[in-house]
Amino acid sequence: MFRFTTFGESHGPLIGVVVDGMPSGIEISEEEMGRALLKRRPGGSYTSQRKEEDIPEIVSGVFEGKTTGAPIAVLIRNNDVKKEDYAPFLTLYRPGHANFTYRAKYGHFDPYGGGRASARETACRTVAGVLAKKLLGDVEIVAYLKQVGPVLGSPTEFVAEKVDRSPIFALYREAEMIEIIEKVRGEGDSIGGIVECIVLNVPKGLGDPVYEKLEANLGRAMLSIPAVKGVEFGEGFAAALMRGSEHNDSMKEGGRFVTNRHGGILGGISTGEPIVFRVVFKPASSIAKPIASVHFDGTLGIAEHPRKSRHDPCVAIRGVKVVEAMAAVVLADAIFYNALNIGRSEHLREISSGAS
Amino acid sequence: MFRFTTFGESHGPLIGVVVDGMPSGIEISEEEMGRALLKRRPGGSYTSQRKEEDIPEIVSGVFEGKTTGAPIAVLIRNNDVKKEDYAPFLTLYRPGHANFTYRAKYGHFDPYGGGRASARETACRTVAGVLAKKLLGDVEIVAYLKQVGPVLGSPTEFVAEKVDRSPIFALYREAEMIEIIEKVRGEGDSIGGIVECIVLNVPKGLGDPVYEKLEANLGRAMLSIPAVKGVEFGEGFAAALMRGSEHNDSMKEGGRFVTNRHGGILGGISTGEPIVFRVVFKPASSIAKPIASVHFDGTLGIAEHPRKSRHDPCVAIRGVKVVEAMAAVVLADAIFYNALNIGRSEHLREISSGAS
Amino acid sequence: MFRFTTFGESHGPLIGVVVDGMPSGIEISEEEMGRALLKRRPGGSYTSQRKEEDIPEIVSGVFEGKTTGAPIAVLIRNNDVKKEDYAPFLTLYRPGHANFTYRAKYGHFDPYGGGRASARETACRTVAGVLAKKLLGDVEIVAYLKQVGPVLGSPTEFVAEKVDRSPIFALYREAEMIEIIEKVRGEGDSIGGIVECIVLNVPKGLGDPVYEKLEANLGRAMLSIPAVKGVEFGEGFAAALMRGSEHNDSMKEGGRFVTNRHGGILGGISTGEPIVFRVVFKPASSIAKPIASVHFDGTLGIAEHPRKSRHDPCVAIRGVKVVEAMAAVVLADAIFYNALNIGRSEHLREISSGAS
Amino acid sequence: MFRFTTFGESHGPLIGVVVDGMPSGIEISEEEMGRALLKRRPGGSYTSQRKEEDIPEIVSGVFEGKTTGAPIAVLIRNNDVKKEDYAPFLTLYRPGHANFTYRAKYGHFDPYGGGRASARETACRTVAGVLAKKLLGDVEIVAYLKQVGPVLGSPTEFVAEKVDRSPIFALYREAEMIEIIEKVRGEGDSIGGIVECIVLNVPKGLGDPVYEKLEANLGRAMLSIPAVKGVEFGEGFAAALMRGSEHNDSMKEGGRFVTNRHGGILGGISTGEPIVFRVVFKPASSIAKPIASVHFDGTLGIAEHPRKSRHDPCVAIRGVKVVEAMAAVVLADAIFYNALNIGRSEHLREISSGAS
Repeated sequence: MFRFTTFGESHGPLIGVVVDGMPSGIEISEEEMGRALLKRRPGGSYTSQRKEEDIPEIVSGVFEGKTTGAPIAVLIRNNDVKKEDYAPFLTLYRPGHANFTYRAKYGHFDPYGGGRASARETACRTVAGVLAKKLLGDVEIVAYLKQVGPVLGSPTEFVAEKVDRSPIFALYREAEMIEIIEKVRGEGDSIGGIVECIVLNVPKGLGDPVYEKLEANLGRAMLSIPAVKGVEFGEGFAAALMRGSEHNDSMKEGGRFVTNRHGGILGGISTGEPIVFRVVFKPASSIAKPIASVHFDGTLGIAEHPRKSRHDPCVAIRGVKVVEAMAAVVLADAIFYNALNIGRSEHLREISSGAS
Repeated sequence: MFRFTTFGESHGPLIGVVVDGMPSGIEISEEEMGRALLKRRPGGSYTSQRKEEDIPEIVSGVFEGKTTGAPIAVLIRNNDVKKEDYAPFLTLYRPGHANFTYRAKYGHFDPYGGGRASARETACRTVAGVLAKKLLGDVEIVAYLKQVGPVLGSPTEFVAEKVDRSPIFALYREAEMIEIIEKVRGEGDSIGGIVECIVLNVPKGLGDPVYEKLEANLGRAMLSIPAVKGVEFGEGFAAALMRGSEHNDSMKEGGRFVTNRHGGILGGISTGEPIVFRVVFKPASSIAKPIASVHFDGTLGIAEHPRKSRHDPCVAIRGVKVVEAMAAVVLADAIFYNALNIGRSEHLREISSGAS
Repeated sequence: MFRFTTFGESHGPLIGVVVDGMPSGIEISEEEMGRALLKRRPGGSYTSQRKEEDIPEIVSGVFEGKTTGAPIAVLIRNNDVKKEDYAPFLTLYRPGHANFTYRAKYGHFDPYGGGRASARETACRTVAGVLAKKLLGDVEIVAYLKQVGPVLGSPTEFVAEKVDRSPIFALYREAEMIEIIEKVRGEGDSIGGIVECIVLNVPKGLGDPVYEKLEANLGRAMLSIPAVKGVEFGEGFAAALMRGSEHNDSMKEGGRFVTNRHGGILGGISTGEPIVFRVVFKPASSIAKPIASVHFDGTLGIAEHPRKSRHDPCVAIRGVKVVEAMAAVVLADAIFYNALNIGRSEHLREISSGAS
Repeated sequence: MFRFTTFGESHGPLIGVVVDGMPSGIEISEEEMGRALLKRRPGGSYTSQRKEEDIPEIVSGVFEGKTTGAPIAVLIRNNDVKKEDYAPFLTLYRPGHANFTYRAKYGHFDPYGGGRASARETACRTVAGVLAKKLLGDVEIVAYLKQVGPVLGSPTEFVAEKVDRSPIFALYREAEMIEIIEKVRGEGDSIGGIVECIVLNVPKGLGDPVYEKLEANLGRAMLSIPAVKGVEFGEGFAAALMRGSEHNDSMKEGGRFVTNRHGGILGGISTGEPIVFRVVFKPASSIAKPIASVHFDGTLGIAEHPRKSRHDPCVAIRGVKVVEAMAAVVLADAIFYNALNIGRSEHLREISSGAS
């Protein structure tokens, strides 16, 4: 129902996103999108030094400040383009990057800044997320940086407001995380990280059985984010170590759960408990360290990004906001589907007649 | 392209699957499907004692032993149905199960044996996997039981043939795994596990950028399997601990990779290295131990499956074959898409004229 | 949202349909489906003499007489199968039939009774229509046989109840239509016809702009029915002869239209006036008259169905009920989508919170 | 496979189209798209006087003149925007137009120039058609203006080259058609028309059975074009008058058909004969004649476009090129699907290994 299409390359004239399925009459502005885009590049010294202003231009689907039900198209110009940084890589595979696979698949492709494979595309996801959040009602999505290298920042209490006050979106052990990020950046290296996402005030009944399980659709969305290599729900991989008698959550009078090892989803459908999942980001592949690579003609070469080139020491930082945006898109869709599935005939009649 | 629809409940008359997108002229038999179904329930004492013969009946799309291009429909009767085992749970939420969420979502549902939410549905996935494997050419998919509770069976060498000789599809430390499974079963409990899947002889170029990444589609397929709570590719969650200089795989002359930390996929597209991913199965929720639950009316109750009832001590065992089947379905689809995307105009002309 | 999958061949063991997207809690019975199937084969001497009882068997998605939200699967056995009737056509192209194109496309196919291309498949559409009609609220769909050969039966007044009392679903000039049908049948020939469909009590706002216009989706559904070669809305092809000043419908105070030349749809979206469209069925291709054809090896042959074989003299008759069923499916879908698009924020909030 | 998304409103900053599914390595230029857009607005006095230069700007998916496999996005600025022409219609329903239905459905919408419902959107379809035609190989699509009001221009011979030399894309009786168009324009009125489309060199086997019939997909595409109210294939509605013995096409040695009453499609699949279909365009609704309409508040009003405002006297003229573009899109898709369905295992193996 709620779906989006993106286009554009890192070093082309612009990137863009078209969102279909947005109802009419909802207030939206370029300013609001701009604020979300600003969050995605938290500045400071912890992310790439590419200086994009990321000014969103709404060119369709909004009239006098409100959505019209038509597709919403948003363009974002690429301004800070440095093609010269990619000169060494026009005939050399960039380790950990997609130019190897794009060349194998397409033969012909745009190599500058990763072209279509660039994480710059996540700005479009952020815009889609802003729209999706309009459809969530009370549902609140908060992601934070849980782990950087060996520093695991599991908060003792969860204070959503703290996340946005942190330059790296951390909740706990922020100083240690920053220290390690600074260190790897100083060495021209990068480091991996884990983002945890918590969804609060979730209505029961979101998601569908079998092939449209909420975990399946959230998982797919997360695994489509650049640099993500895994996703887990509730206890996740730790469940391998557990007994059923430990893992099963007992219930209390009235129908809430005592614990939430299931992560808010049973049988692919939300239980009303917070949805909890974690996403791992690999360390950024663009580093200022030499690594054995191969030229397009098969001969050996050395890949090394110049020290001065602009890359993220820890992509998980900006991943925090992309995780939130993608979760919003999946949940907006699930809320819509759910409204259709309630299936008590009164409601059905209401929906039908409400349409007249 | 290759897609399937399933239907049926655990304790209804039958379950079924319809596969669309299968080309014509391919040999297929009920015997072949029956053999795969037999693998899914490896018998012995390590899985549920439900005694289903699982006899597949092809009712559409196959003529004189070969596919016709029409939808292939396969029915499997439910014979060993014991509705009486579910008497205690007609008004009581089963901990860890979907009757809580189905009731919240649908109001009206079939509670016997989990109804539509039953893992019995995975027999249909197995049948779809048999068909998908026909389209894989040289691509070989092998999954095995890597971990049960604390027993981690990372093989020192990978011998695909060994998997099918093991009653629990283990490659390494099989005896220790069996011991722990026997133990939890004796206690009326269950245990979690991890399945690793390795795909060999993968052509380069499978998968698509951005939203149709191969990890995204494989991940979604895995997270749709009952009891799965996480999936990771290559180094997976361990990548959080790594530096870019460690995680980037260097290359050797000619264009192969020295290591495979990326798990066979870069930028969402296969590199030609083996695809490697792991899937975690939670411990089965049906156990013969009491746990505080709630009746449909909100009052407290105690949920406890009778000792004699038929359940899996470790669902990851039969998960091995379901993981393989779902991987086959996703890869069959990716191979088809890929053929279309090759995009050299010679090939394009060939495809078009080949169609005449 | 509301979608269905069918399978099965004319002379295989059974045909079947799986309906996804049906809400839970809706009463449905095999009897009700059986009555609709009976309507589709009105017996008498005006249709094929194939004697199928068409007993629907619900095997999934219904529990204790009500839908559960799970896929609804219905099987219908093929009992009156006469493979011997097709002996002449195992190596000869049947004029007007699909064995030419199936052989070209698939190489291998089931030739008996048209196999997958048989109009027998429309029984599955009828079952899907029964379910779709449950979701239509006050919307009423009535189709009738408007033209048979040169006999144009435009009714002076539209009395929906009369349709089901006619053995050929005619409203006007029924006797003349029957006469011509009897005549062509006596000659071993067949005749074309036009079905008109009128949808009453249509809420405003069904359908979507641009590519999901209501005409586009209704038109596609109609053109998927066997033997249909055209569809037109409102004035249809006669609009080519009209001026804008004639074709534009003027309006009256309050917002209803004075005339309905637009056929109930403007800009792809329903106006609240009755939706009116017509569908043309070609004369049945299976006739007892010789026609020059070609054997699979390219040599000339003569195709002639035996006089005694069982075929429809005018497929438009049973087409009436298939048109209704397909219209119901498209409209059920449109009503659902519409509920989602209303877009006033109050309603949106209501839908979301109604889901909790 | 080949699919496109469009966005933008008539009087917004721009309109745009995103094409997915285009293979890489195919030459494409803005000039080529510009030429096709020029064809769509044949100028002269027979179409709207809106003066849009329609300069296409490729912003994604093309690198150094060739496609890369990434989504191809094309923007077209709106320059000749006259909002003042729509002042009378900001609170009045425009007869025959979508502002009635958009208001009913969306509440809030862009009324200028028809907003999203404007036929300006067909410029995007034209761009998609340019790309689709690259994938058609030898397949040739030619549409022409067959009928304007009562003037039926069925050509005695079909000379494709003549079409583009005619300012109204007519093949026969062009002068009479122009005369009637001039006449209605002089009167501030408009007239309907019929476009016939002929597809030559069609490979056998395009299209799929049952719900993906080639007629169904072509028909849907045609019925999505603004102002289209009907579509028919082969003999179309005239088949209602025919006997099976007349309508069945006999065959000649080798497997070609003697006649082509079936219009190139049997059982939903192409036979290799030319595909022939006709599309009816209603007379343009925007006319300089008064007609009783209603204000948004329900009170009566008179709708009358100013004489000087810019509208088409016969939208079927520019419809010719839109029909061709939409046919190209559907056929490009069908050719792709067909390549996948050929199903001889040799071919399958070839496709798979070609992908490596």
